Amino acid sequence: MNNLALLTDFYELTMAYSYFKEGKGDVIAYFDVFFRRNPDKGGFAVFSGLEQIIDYIINIKFTKEDIDFLRNKNMFDEDFLEYLENFKFKGDVYAFKEGSVIFPHEPVITVRANIIEAQIIETMTLLQFNHQSLIATKANRIVTSANGRAVMEFGARRAHGVSASINGARAAYIAGCVGTSNTILGKMYDISVLGTMAHSYVQSFDSELEAFKAYCRTFPDNATLLVDSYDTLKSGVPNAIKAFKEIVLPLGHRPKGIRIDSGDLSYLAKEARRMLDEAGFEDVKIIASNSLDEYLIKELLNEQGAPIDIFGVGERLICARSEPVFGGVYKLVATQKGDKMTPKIKISDNIAKMTNPGFKRVYRIYNEKNEAQADLVCLHDEVLEDGQTIEIFDPNHTWKRKTLENIRVKDMRDLVIKDGVQIVATPSLEEMRNHLKSELKTMDDSIKRFSNPHEYYVDLSQKLWDLRERLIKENK
Amino acid sequence: MNNLALLTDFYELTMAYSYFKEGKGDVIAYFDVFFRRNPDKGGFAVFSGLEQIIDYIINIKFTKEDIDFLRNKNMFDEDFLEYLENFKFKGDVYAFKEGSVIFPHEPVITVRANIIEAQIIETMTLLQFNHQSLIATKANRIVTSANGRAVMEFGARRAHGVSASINGARAAYIAGCVGTSNTILGKMYDISVLGTMAHSYVQSFDSELEAFKAYCRTFPDNATLLVDSYDTLKSGVPNAIKAFKEIVLPLGHRPKGIRIDSGDLSYLAKEARRMLDEAGFEDVKIIASNSLDEYLIKELLNEQGAPIDIFGVGERLICARSEPVFGGVYKLVATQKGDKMTPKIKISDNIAKMTNPGFKRVYRIYNEKNEAQADLVCLHDEVLEDGQTIEIFDPNHTWKRKTLENIRVKDMRDLVIKDGVQIVATPSLEEMRNHLKSELKTMDDSIKRFSNPHEYYVDLSQKLWDLRERLIKENK
Repeated sequence: MNNLALLTDFYELTMAYSYFKEGKGDVIAYFDVFFRRNPDKGGFAVFSGLEQIIDYIINIKFTKEDIDFLRNKNMFDEDFLEYLENFKFKGDVYAFKEGSVIFPHEPVITVRANIIEAQIIETMTLLQFNHQSLIATKANRIVTSANGRAVMEFGARRAHGVSASINGARAAYIAGCVGTSNTILGKMYDISVLGTMAHSYVQSFDSELEAFKAYCRTFPDNATLLVDSYDTLKSGVPNAIKAFKEIVLPLGHRPKGIRIDSGDLSYLAKEARRMLDEAGFEDVKIIASNSLDEYLIKELLNEQGAPIDIFGVGERLICARSEPVFGGVYKLVATQKGDKMTPKIKISDNIAKMTNPGFKRVYRIYNEKNEAQADLVCLHDEVLEDGQTIEIFDPNHTWKRKTLENIRVKDMRDLVIKDGVQIVATPSLEEMRNHLKSELKTMDDSIKRFSNPHEYYVDLSQKLWDLRERLIKENK
Repeated sequence: MNNLALLTDFYELTMAYSYFKEGKGDVIAYFDVFFRRNPDKGGFAVFSGLEQIIDYIINIKFTKEDIDFLRNKNMFDEDFLEYLENFKFKGDVYAFKEGSVIFPHEPVITVRANIIEAQIIETMTLLQFNHQSLIATKANRIVTSANGRAVMEFGARRAHGVSASINGARAAYIAGCVGTSNTILGKMYDISVLGTMAHSYVQSFDSELEAFKAYCRTFPDNATLLVDSYDTLKSGVPNAIKAFKEIVLPLGHRPKGIRIDSGDLSYLAKEARRMLDEAGFEDVKIIASNSLDEYLIKELLNEQGAPIDIFGVGERLICARSEPVFGGVYKLVATQKGDKMTPKIKISDNIAKMTNPGFKRVYRIYNEKNEAQADLVCLHDEVLEDGQTIEIFDPNHTWKRKTLENIRVKDMRDLVIKDGVQIVATPSLEEMRNHLKSELKTMDDSIKRFSNPHEYYVDLSQKLWDLRERLIKENK
C-alpha cells in the first residue's frame, strides 16, 4: 500500500510535534506490542501481519500533499513540517516470526526508535497486528475443528472492505486454510483459488439439468455443481449425476464435486454421498457451506459423522464474527537517553492491565521431547541456555513454582529491522504456514482444546519481576 | 483503488466463462442487492458504500497481469481472455441515495447488464455495500444514543485493515459522527480530525505535570489533556488545572478539554466537572473513551447524568462488535432476451429467504405531514402519484390491510449508471450526512428505538405480489 503515512491517529502527530518542540527528538523509546486475552476463550493466538508491518515501517513517507494538508491545519511550524518531509524510520524492530503461536502479555513486537518515529508508526502497526492475528487465530480454530478435512476461505463479500478481504484470506491461509475464493490472492501469493457456481447460474437457465450440463460442457475436467437451488435430494443430486454421466464421463473425465449451501447439511451430505456412491461417483467430493464455524463443523464431523470433504467458510471466519476485536496494544516500556535506560510501567488497579517494564526478550522453553513448557519473559541482557535447570513462577502468585530440568530454549524474536533496514527476509506464506504447523506440534493438546483450555505459562524472570515490583512501589 | 478486477470470487469468472461459451452473452440479467435483517435488532439500516461501488463498476478493468494469471490456470480459452482484456461494464445501475434509511427485503441496488458483466461485479458490490452499511448503521445507533453530544470515531487501530479504517470512518461520518482520529480522512474528505495524547506521552516525561505543561506549551490554543495515567481525580485533573493556569491562561488562550479513558466514567466525569468549574474552566470539555457503545453511552447520559461532552468510540463502532456481519445478498430477479423479460424467483422453504421477482421500483409513501408510512415495492412500470389513495397489505399475511389517503410518494432510487457511464454526480459526504438526517426526521420514533422497534411496512404492490404467487406455484 502506498502513501499511508497519514493513516495514523492524529494524536501520534500532535505528540510527535510536542516531542519535537520540547527537544525530545534524541530520546530513544521502547514500545511493546502485546495482547491481553485470547479470543473465543481459546488457549493461544496466532501471530500474523508482520509482513505488512515491516513493509509499512520501512517505506513510510509523508508526501508533499500530506505535508500541505498538515500545514493547512495551522498547528505545526515549518521546522516540524520539514522534519516530516524528510521523515524515515531509522529504528529497530524485534518480532516473533509470522505464524507463531503467541500468548497474552508477552511482547510479540518491540519497537526501539527515537520517540517521534516510534510514536508515529503506532496506529498502522497495531491495525495490521490486530486484524491479521484476529483472523489467523479464528481461522486456525476452524481448521482445527475440521480435523484434517479441507477448509476454504469464502468470505470476500462480507469482509470489512478491500484489505480485510485480501489480508484476511492471507491470514487464513497462514492459519491452515487450503485456499480461498478470492481470486486476487492467487495472483498475489499463489494461494489456491477455487470457485464453482452461484444459484444465479442455475436460475439463469430454463432448468437445473440444463444449467448443470452447460457447466459440465464448459469445465468437463473440473465440474463442481451447486445442488441446492430447488431440492437437493429430489432434484439437485439426481440432476448432477445425470449431467456427470451424460457430459463428463463421455468426454473421458471424472467430475470433481457437488456443493450444498443450505438445509440440514449432515442429512443432505449423507444422502448425497449414498446417491453418488451408488452411481459410481465415490471420488466426487462433497463441499458444504452456509454460516459454518468451528463449532458447527465439529458437530457435523464428530457427532453427526457427516461425509463432508471440504468446508467453505465465509462471514464467521473473515469477520471473526464470534469475537471481531483483537485487543493488541502498544505500550511504552522504557526510554533511553545516551546510555541511560529508564524502564517505564503503566500502573493500573487491574493487574491484567499492568505493563511489564523494560527492554525484554522472550524465551520459549521445551523439554527433551520438544514439548513447549512455558514462555519466559526476561530482560534483554538475560541469557538462557540449553541444558539448564530453571525455576519458573507465576508472576501474580509467586508461591506457584515449578522446576524445569534439562531445558531446550528458543529465543522467540528476531531483529527484523535494524536502523530502519529490513535485515531478515520475509518468508513465503508457505513457510509461515509450516512454521505454525510445527509450532502447534510442540503445544500440548490441553492448550489447543476449545473448552477451558489449559493456561500456558507466560512467566517473568526473577530480574524482570523484581524490576516490576520496584517500579510499582515507586509509583505508589 | 486500482486494479481490483481480480478481487472477485473465482466462481464469478467460471460462471462468466460458461455464459460466454454457451452463447449467453446477449442475455440481460437483473440482480437486486438487498438485506434480510436489521443488525442489532434495530428498526432500520443506513445505506452506505455507493460511491465506492460506482467507482469500482465504472473503472473495472483486467490488466495484462490479471489476464496472464488467468491464462496460467489453464481453464479459460483465448477468446474469453480477449473478452476480459476488453472488458468494460456497459450496463445500468439503480440505487438508493447513499445515506438513505433502508429496510429489509427492498432492492437497495439493482444491476441491469448482460449476464457476464452483471455476474463479475457481484463480489465487490456486496463487499462495499455490506461493509459500509454495517458501519453506518452501527455508528448511527451510537450517534443516536449520544442524543446531541458529539461522537468521534477512534477505532483505526482495531479496524479490519486499511480500507476498514478508512471507509469505516467515512461511513461513521455519514451516519453522524462529528469526526475521526484517523488523519487520512481529513485529507481525503475534509472530515474533522481530532487527537490529543496517549498514555505513552505522559509516561515519557518524569512527571504528569511536566507532561501536561509541555503539551500546553506546544498547543496553548488547543490543549486537551489525558488525565487518567496515574489517578484521575487525585493527580490528573489537579495537574491539568495547574498546567492550564500556568501555561495556557498566561498566553491568552482558553484550554480545550480533558480526556478520561478508564475507570468509572460517570463518577470521574462528575467530579472532574466540579473541579474544572470551581477552577473557572466551565468551558473546558470532557471527553470520554474506553470500550463505549450505544448502550453504555445511553446509560451514562440518561441514568447517570454524566457531564460528558464528547464520546470517543473505538472498536465497538469500527468493528461493529455486537454484530459484525451485514448480510447483504445479490440475487438474480429477471433475465431478458430481446424484448422478452423472464422474472426469476429463488424458492426457499423459509419465506424470509424467498426473493421478490422482476425488475422493480421502490416508492416511499408519506402522509401530508411528511411522515413515512410504508415502502412499496412495485414492478418497474407501475406509477404512484401524489394525492392518491392506496391500500397496502402485508405480503405474507394478506388480510392485514391498511388504506393510505392523500399520499405523498418518493421514488427512492436513481439511475446512477447508464450504459456504463455514471450519470448522477456523487454527492459530498456532507450531503449524504444531511440526507440521512432529513430521512430520519420523517421516520417515527417507534422505528428508531433500540428495544423492540416497530416494524416499518415494506409491502409489495398487488401486481408484484401476483407475480410472486404465480412463480411460486410454477416452481412447485
